[in-house]
Order: sequence, then structure tokens, then C-alpha cells
Amino acid sequence: MATDRRRTILEGAARVIARHGVRGLRMETLATEAGVSTALIYYHFKDRAGTLRHTLEFISDRADRYTGDGGGGGGSTLGPRDARQELEQSLLLEFQELPEVRENSIAWGELRASAIFEPELRGDLARATLTWIHDVADLLGRVRPTAPAPALTASAERLTGLLEGLSTRWLSGALPLSHAHALVREAVALEIEHLSR
Amino acid sequence: MATDRRRTILEGAARVIARHGVRGLRMETLATEAGVSTALIYYHFKDRAGTLRHTLEFISDRADRYTGDGGGGGGSTLGPRDARQELEQSLLLEFQELPEVRENSIAWGELRASAIFEPELRGDLARATLTWIHDVADLLGRVRPTAPAPALTASAERLTGLLEGLSTRWLSGALPLSHAHALVREAVALEIEHLSR
Repeated sequence: MATDRRRTILEGAARVIARHGVRGLRMETLATEAGVSTALIYYHFKDRAGTLRHTLEFISDRADRYTGDGGGGGGSTLGPRDARQELEQSLLLEFQELPEVRENSIAWGELRASAIFEPELRGDLARATLTWIHDVADLLGRVRPTAPAPALTASAERLTGLLEGLSTRWLSGALPLSHAHALVREAVALEIEHLSR
Repeated sequence: MATDRRRTILEGAARVIARHGVRGLRMETLATEAGVSTALIYYHFKDRAGTLRHTLEFISDRADRYTGDGGGGGGSTLGPRDARQELEQSLLLEFQELPEVRENSIAWGELRASAIFEPELRGDLARATLTWIHDVADLLGRVRPTAPAPALTASAERLTGLLEGLSTRWLSGALPLSHAHALVREAVALEIEHLSR
């Protein structure tokens, strides 16, 4: 029951952020959106900063789920070809015409952008980004097992950075989904070729 | 005199957006920041949407200036090696530890992100982005004159998209300047190599 309420609040927070931005997340607005009292929000998340941090984690976990990265462990048995497919899939699935994915991408972009203004978000955001970079570097390492670790990380940094840049263009209607996919697919091919040299 | 006031208002708008986001741009706040009356802002820019559009143009022009793309015309005489150098320079100069550059990058990121919520900004933003993509594709075409146009555009879309993604990481302190430069330099090398095939 407690976890249900917790989840309801975090889902509400993601919706509010996707609609009004991080600056629009007031405890009263969130309470109304989630249909709970502000006291319950404070009970679960201590304060606004705590709520933001847990929302960031919630959004990041949700993205893991729809990009197929939620299984865990299975990756260790992947051969190079499967690893490449899983890598492409996980990156392409960041762009999907589903309301949940759009909402999640918008909220994530907002959290990212607002870390510039809200320093208390920076640590958690940097950690979430680093986990993502490591996951991508790990898959690249399965595709190219002899590539040195710093090269794998740099490729992963570029691929995830590109995705974040293209995501904003897609969400504002400047980049069609299919073209975003084509650009990402080619970026993966370029990085993998680069890592085999 | 009229253009001085106009400029003062646009400089003020860039500062307000960099500090409080696009949502924080109220006509009263801007009037106070620029030291003018709200009537003068309405006289020059008609309404809030008009002010935002002109600020976007102002910020984009300012970025052209500090990335060395303001000269115009000179590019047509560049050989492949000079073009590559100019391309690298113009991309790397998006990351500089100067207050003006930081402010400009933050404001540009805010305008980009807010086009998701403010549809009336989308047309101008898409045009500014397209101009940037074309400039980069043009320089890539001088480095690799035999590469087909769609390939040049795709490379330019990836390079500018990557820059936008890395910019947010840099501005929120998650990516050191020198590492951003290294990632971009390698991305340019990968795209140029790709275009020579």
C-alpha cells in the first residue's frame, strides 16, 4: 500500500514535470495531480529536492524498462552480433511514439536541463548518466572485445550525448522518428567500425 | 538610438532566460532587467512570442560571432585542410569558459527545450537549427568534395546533435571542457573518414 502511494506520487511528478517543467513542480500541484496530501509527499520524500531526486530515479528506471535494459545479467552471455542488436535496439527505443515514452523523454530532458539551475540535482543526474554510459560501453565491449576501455567509454559518451541532443529535436517536432532512427543506426555503425581499428 | 534600446532589451532577455528559463521571461521582469518600460518592449517586439523569437535570433547571431562564423563568404575559398580546421574550431568554440558563451549556451538550451512546450517557437528554432546544419554540411563538403549531399547533411545533423547533447552535460558540470573538446574532435574525425568512403 505504502509503495502504491509512493509510485502514484512519482508518476504524478513525472507528469507534472513533463507538462510544466521542473520549475513548475510545486508540492501543492503534485499533491493535486497525485490525489494525495502534501504531508504524504513530505513523509515519503522529505522535501522538494528529495522528490526531484526520486523522480529522476523513477524516470531513469522506467526508461530502462522500455528500452529493454531491465532484465539485468542476461547481457553477460551475449555474443558480438546479439550485443550489437541489443545496443541498437536499446538506443532506438528511446524514440517511440508512445505517450509514456514521450512523457518520460520530456521529463528526463527537463531534469537534465534544470541541473544547470538546481545544483542539488547534479550528483544524481551525473550518476544516472554514468550508469547509462557504462551500460552502452559494456555492450560495445561485447561487440568489440579487444577495444581498450577508454575508447569504449568515449564511444558510449558520444552515442548517449547524440541521443540526448536528437531527443530534444524529436520532441519539438523538428526531427521525424524514422530519420532519428537512421541517424542513430549510422552513428552506432561508425563507432563500432572505429573501435575495430 | 532605437537599435541601441532594441539591443539592450535583447541582451536583457538572454540574461533573464539564462537565469530563470523561458518560463521565467515575463515582460515586467525583462523591463526591469533591461531598464526600459514594458511599453517599449511591446513597441519593438509586439508581444511575448515576438520577443522570444527575436531573442532566439539574437542568441543565434551571437553564437555565430564567437564561433567565428560571422565573416560570411570567406568560406568559399577554403581548401580541404583549412575547411577542416575551420569546422573543428567552430564546433569546439561552442564550449568556452567565458561568461558570455555560458550565458548564450544556457539560453539556447532553454529555448530549444521550451519549443517542446511553446509551439510558436518551433518554426524559428527549426530554421536556426537548419542553418547551422547547412553551415556544417557546407564545411564538410569542402573537406570531402565528392561526398553525396544527403551523407553530408546526415553527418552535420549528427555533429550538431552531439554538440547539443554534450552542451547540457558541460553546463551542468558533468563534463569537463577538455574532455568535451576531445569527444567532439574525434567525432569530426569519424564523420570525415566516413564521408571519404
